[in-house]
Amino acid sequence: MQILDIASFLPSVVVDNQQLGRLTGLAAGYFQQRTGILERRRAADGENTNTLAVRAATALLARHPQAVAAIDLIIGCSYTSWDLIGTIAHAVQRACGLVRARAFTLSSACSSVSNALEVCAAFFDAGRSQQVLVVAADHNSLYSDDTDRQSGHLWGDGAAALLLTRTAAPSAQFELLDVWTAGLGHVGLGPAAVGLMPRGAGLVMPHGRDVFVQAVEGMTVAAQTVLERNGVRAADLRLLAPHQANQRILDQVAKRLGLGPTQVASTIARYGNTGCASAVITLAEHQAQCAAGELALLVTFGGGYSSGAALLRRL
Amino acid sequence: MQILDIASFLPSVVVDNQQLGRLTGLAAGYFQQRTGILERRRAADGENTNTLAVRAATALLARHPQAVAAIDLIIGCSYTSWDLIGTIAHAVQRACGLVRARAFTLSSACSSVSNALEVCAAFFDAGRSQQVLVVAADHNSLYSDDTDRQSGHLWGDGAAALLLTRTAAPSAQFELLDVWTAGLGHVGLGPAAVGLMPRGAGLVMPHGRDVFVQAVEGMTVAAQTVLERNGVRAADLRLLAPHQANQRILDQVAKRLGLGPTQVASTIARYGNTGCASAVITLAEHQAQCAAGELALLVTFGGGYSSGAALLRRL
Repeated sequence: MQILDIASFLPSVVVDNQQLGRLTGLAAGYFQQRTGILERRRAADGENTNTLAVRAATALLARHPQAVAAIDLIIGCSYTSWDLIGTIAHAVQRACGLVRARAFTLSSACSSVSNALEVCAAFFDAGRSQQVLVVAADHNSLYSDDTDRQSGHLWGDGAAALLLTRTAAPSAQFELLDVWTAGLGHVGLGPAAVGLMPRGAGLVMPHGRDVFVQAVEGMTVAAQTVLERNGVRAADLRLLAPHQANQRILDQVAKRLGLGPTQVASTIARYGNTGCASAVITLAEHQAQCAAGELALLVTFGGGYSSGAALLRRL
Repeated sequence: MQILDIASFLPSVVVDNQQLGRLTGLAAGYFQQRTGILERRRAADGENTNTLAVRAATALLARHPQAVAAIDLIIGCSYTSWDLIGTIAHAVQRACGLVRARAFTLSSACSSVSNALEVCAAFFDAGRSQQVLVVAADHNSLYSDDTDRQSGHLWGDGAAALLLTRTAAPSAQFELLDVWTAGLGHVGLGPAAVGLMPRGAGLVMPHGRDVFVQAVEGMTVAAQTVLERNGVRAADLRLLAPHQANQRILDQVAKRLGLGPTQVASTIARYGNTGCASAVITLAEHQAQCAAGELALLVTFGGGYSSGAALLRRL
């Protein structure tokens, strides 16, 4: 199973800490100190999960026109739906003319891409698919509140797309060596810690401390599980591409795994937490650091809770 | 791959056509004539997709306590989320203590269960799972409007759960012989025909005529595809368990397939369109019609668009 190519799309509107400082009455420096975030991108009027997903998918498929007729499965990843019936997978199918593809969207919040990669691996292993498009998009600001002092400053909007092939492709970027996921709804405060109630409070994080503790534990265990079962030491990783929840969470995960700062990719300062897309956006922006044969580990954590990790070798 | 058991849960509040007639100014008989619906169930205050899903899963697992430690994957199916982060899969994991399971929720709207069965088949075929819980729940009335004359009368609330095993189980109810799905986002009006915009218009069906045409075509083709590739004639089916979109759609699908009225299961008169759960609720209520060795076909259509079908043999 190979990742033929990756693309990302970030909307152009920038919201910086000064703006959120004015809205919340908190010092702008507080947001950076607490989270490492300097600014985040926001969808403009008329942009939503479906348009963000289409932008990322279109950018990817423009480089791979032959894939349009070959893709037999589209897996959307999103928890901030604009339309819960016409999902991002269906919008991408229509916009990109992927007429041969099955289509559905899945969510375990910010760990969704790990689940999508595992579904993809299962379809490939079972001979049910040959070429899969995974597209992740979140429009957190549709449901978040910039005046929310607890978590309003965390959220950014963004999208990413991955083109995966069952068999070896000459120009592929990564071999996917292994993928592992875990449901953690039973752990800590589970589904109560972070919520997105569209007809209720919107996107809120009433129990940030529990999220911090469980995200560090969940991403560390996911990474260790995949490293151990593949006989890889953390020191052998060229790159960890983690879900961008909070720089302090990333620092703790790096410390627990014994990784140095150059091994851990981060985009949170510029994009904030972009949800399902964040680990893939981060991998896309840092993949040039990996030389052929070097290893990267994508690791995710979802606020419901869930976790996952995927071990990649640069081709 | 076998379906060990099926359970459903319908909330107790009933809304009949007289009530909707008063709210819309339309004659109560109009709803029945247009859709076959006499009444539908509605979640009460405090009920939502997560509580409905937990009720169905709890009822199922009460009959299979040994499954709690064995389930290694929970697939939720829902498009009317109460909480888009703590999804129904995560709520069920926590409430039922399914500590070994991966967990995510997927959606292609009302065809989601077909996608879940295909994911399940892929996990089994690839040796990634041994026992899977699929749980479907929709709380349409959270997002629908009873005064909406176009589609407010269609929607009911309900949930269903399926316990699936990779290998033969002594008391299993059905063998799953085949499952097939298609993404149809590119067909007709696609994602624009039905919508659920949580921060917009809610659950609406601006293009009911296109939905009717595409649902008849989509379910007919899905059924024909699975029948043909398994060498089964429509006449050999004991039971068609279709998504309960509208009785007139079911009648047209039956006519296109050449099925007689006793072959087509319907629960729409009492429950309306219960979304992701509807085909499974209908299968659960009619499965006693199938004797050992007889064939049933579950067939679905999702409003984004998507379709799917699964061929079952009663054990």
